Amino acid sequence: MRFTSEQRLDDGVRERAFTLGEIPGILWTPASPPAPAPLILLGHPPLGLDRMYPRLAARARHAAADGFASATIELPGSGDRPRLPGVEQARAELGRAVRAGERIGDEIVDALVLPLVERAVPEWRAALDALLALPEIGGPVGYSGGVISLGVRLAAVEPRISAAVLFAGSFVPRVVLEEARRVTVPLHVLLQWDDEGNDRQAALDLFDAFGSREKTLHANMGGHTGVPEFAAEAAGRFLARHLG
Amino acid sequence: MRFTSEQRLDDGVRERAFTLGEIPGILWTPASPPAPAPLILLGHPPLGLDRMYPRLAARARHAAADGFASATIELPGSGDRPRLPGVEQARAELGRAVRAGERIGDEIVDALVLPLVERAVPEWRAALDALLALPEIGGPVGYSGGVISLGVRLAAVEPRISAAVLFAGSFVPRVVLEEARRVTVPLHVLLQWDDEGNDRQAALDLFDAFGSREKTLHANMGGHTGVPEFAAEAAGRFLARHLG
Repeated sequence: MRFTSEQRLDDGVRERAFTLGEIPGILWTPASPPAPAPLILLGHPPLGLDRMYPRLAARARHAAADGFASATIELPGSGDRPRLPGVEQARAELGRAVRAGERIGDEIVDALVLPLVERAVPEWRAALDALLALPEIGGPVGYSGGVISLGVRLAAVEPRISAAVLFAGSFVPRVVLEEARRVTVPLHVLLQWDDEGNDRQAALDLFDAFGSREKTLHANMGGHTGVPEFAAEAAGRFLARHLG
Repeated sequence: MRFTSEQRLDDGVRERAFTLGEIPGILWTPASPPAPAPLILLGHPPLGLDRMYPRLAARARHAAADGFASATIELPGSGDRPRLPGVEQARAELGRAVRAGERIGDEIVDALVLPLVERAVPEWRAALDALLALPEIGGPVGYSGGVISLGVRLAAVEPRISAAVLFAGSFVPRVVLEEARRVTVPLHVLLQWDDEGNDRQAALDLFDAFGSREKTLHANMGGHTGVPEFAAEAAGRFLARHLG
């Protein structure tokens, strides 16, 4: 892990860009960190870190206000990273199926999601190794948001994650749905009730599948990007309760 | 409305028993009320006020800590009030159907719930008239918990209720389900995911039916009486946000 730039945001939050091998990432730490600080891994959709930066920085500031460090890395196939083989074609297939009003087949979902998840999970775990080696970061570690299948698999396989906020989605490969049963950490799952891009029943089935003894579903009105401010605050309180 | 007794709870909350005609009720006001205080109507299951008192008083204390008055009245057919015609028989029918593993027919649900709701709604509205006439109570008014069909109809027909916390249940007569579409106030709906006494899909259908632009479903693990403390706190925050 190599830091490449540093700045202070208005509210004193320290923002450092880094690279982990070829992978760019960002670390935010509170203005006056408790030493060492708990860490939230900020998930995001595969649209590229540059495009996601304003929303990520806003979430990082909220986390910093609660005394948490937060960090994220670029997803494989996004931003300046090489495209993933087969994913563009799967996306085209998906678009065609949606326009034709067809059921989205398992093979499209697998082709779209699995290459990303299979590369991303070891990368996020490597980032976690590097971040937890910094003296200012101590854990516990939470995961929040982004590609649902990445969150599910990370929560299933990475024992250092002790709580997760997940944004319920329906494009979950069958193999990942099975892994949901192995997730046991406390979960806070957000569902947009009228999400145009997700099947509501599939999202409810995923929530049902999680093995966690403490899991909460917060369903709110509105489309994919319409998560109300009070719902974001409730997710923050969940993390503060489990990492604080 | 006639006050029949008064006491101060440990934390200074003022508790007054009253009767409204033949109907017993309780009013709680904060130790140092903002004058006049918003009001929360505390719904409860039809088990009698005496039996429900400890849980009601605990909810009233939480409300008082937020600066809210709260009040409740005995349900028709509960406590010392005369039994409702047909309800005992409907309950026996329900028990038989449940033991036999049969689908619960609409006629059983109607016979069980409608006599209660049809009497209770005008009583709760009369209680609201009397409570809002007190100088220490000013509104706005919230409704929280208890028999789901009573909450739905009250929220649909009583314009002075400006937000409601509802405990999702499946024993909702078809006529009440239709009324849910006319509810427009902000709603916070609690669902116990593994509620042995409720059908999950029916509860989700009820949530879907509400006409409110702001409605949130909080689903948590556990059975009917297992609502986690953090979920109760979240419901309190919802009311504080809308009545405060």
